[in-house]
Amino acid sequence: MISKATLGRLPIYLTYLKQQDSSIHDISATGIAKGLSLGDVQVRKDLSAVCGSGKPKTGYNRLELISCMEKALGYGRESEAVIVGAGKLGQALLGFRGFCEYGIELKAAFDNASERIGGAVLPIEELPAYCALHQVEIGILTVPPEAAQESAEFMVKAGIKAIWCFSSASLSLPKEICVHYENLALSLAHLKQKTV
Amino acid sequence: MISKATLGRLPIYLTYLKQQDSSIHDISATGIAKGLSLGDVQVRKDLSAVCGSGKPKTGYNRLELISCMEKALGYGRESEAVIVGAGKLGQALLGFRGFCEYGIELKAAFDNASERIGGAVLPIEELPAYCALHQVEIGILTVPPEAAQESAEFMVKAGIKAIWCFSSASLSLPKEICVHYENLALSLAHLKQKTV
Repeated sequence: MISKATLGRLPIYLTYLKQQDSSIHDISATGIAKGLSLGDVQVRKDLSAVCGSGKPKTGYNRLELISCMEKALGYGRESEAVIVGAGKLGQALLGFRGFCEYGIELKAAFDNASERIGGAVLPIEELPAYCALHQVEIGILTVPPEAAQESAEFMVKAGIKAIWCFSSASLSLPKEICVHYENLALSLAHLKQKTV
Repeated sequence: MISKATLGRLPIYLTYLKQQDSSIHDISATGIAKGLSLGDVQVRKDLSAVCGSGKPKTGYNRLELISCMEKALGYGRESEAVIVGAGKLGQALLGFRGFCEYGIELKAAFDNASERIGGAVLPIEELPAYCALHQVEIGILTVPPEAAQESAEFMVKAGIKAIWCFSSASLSLPKEICVHYENLALSLAHLKQKTV
């Protein structure tokens, strides 16, 4: 698996590689590092993680490198993710541009409050059918903490295999389900430490 | 500085310590680890990071440990943070319960769109006066990418020393300003990798 740090730099490399003149066939890690003012060693490591080691002296074929990066970012096999909980955070994420850069589409959110249903927000009962139809395996959980466990279980039943959990709750789920807890308060607390 | 992982566990320890019967004066890392089903080594490391090493055999004085943790979490010297950009994400963060657990208060957001002003959302022009009055040094940036640089500069002029940036932009600021970029798309992409 590609590290999160490397993954985060791929869109930067990709943009850079695509911006180059089409007459440029080969490009070296050093060249990219210079062009982007990044460390040579880091770029070398990142490129080899997604595209193996380049050829001695010439480096990488530019188009091949682009293709490797697009593959690593999931282009061509876009995944759709769904949101459960269409409160303010859920709606903010639904409107967030930026997921597509990583081959992820967010088209629908689900909620049980009738006043929120409409547009891209669908009734929670429709989650299983939607996930089956669109082969959705990733879910974003943005419900209040007290509703988190029940909602997560419903998502798993609907076929979700990975949950990005924004609710401050500890979920008890089958161990094959991958859960990533996003603790926003902790991120801010960590930043606060640096100001002391 | 306390690591983010340790910091994240402090509220759990704190709740546990406070729940104990008041007759319990001393408590050991092993006892806490058992009570919380956490690893012994991890708990020992966490406690020593915030409260030094305990006494041999008896461990820590419970009230002293509580006091150390509250100090590490910033209790008694609560900081206020402000939000710049009161769109959906900004408003979601403004309504987020959970920051107080880490000694951070979020009371106001600032925006330049008149239709958003009202309640806890104040006009952006009032940011400098607000920060001066409330001694705010932490700012959360949730504006569109194209407005990020200008907004960040305005925050720095207003006295902000640390910025939590949700805009997908690379800020160019004086080097003493601490910036933490929150790349939500990347977090989701990383989770997606695990489902493949």
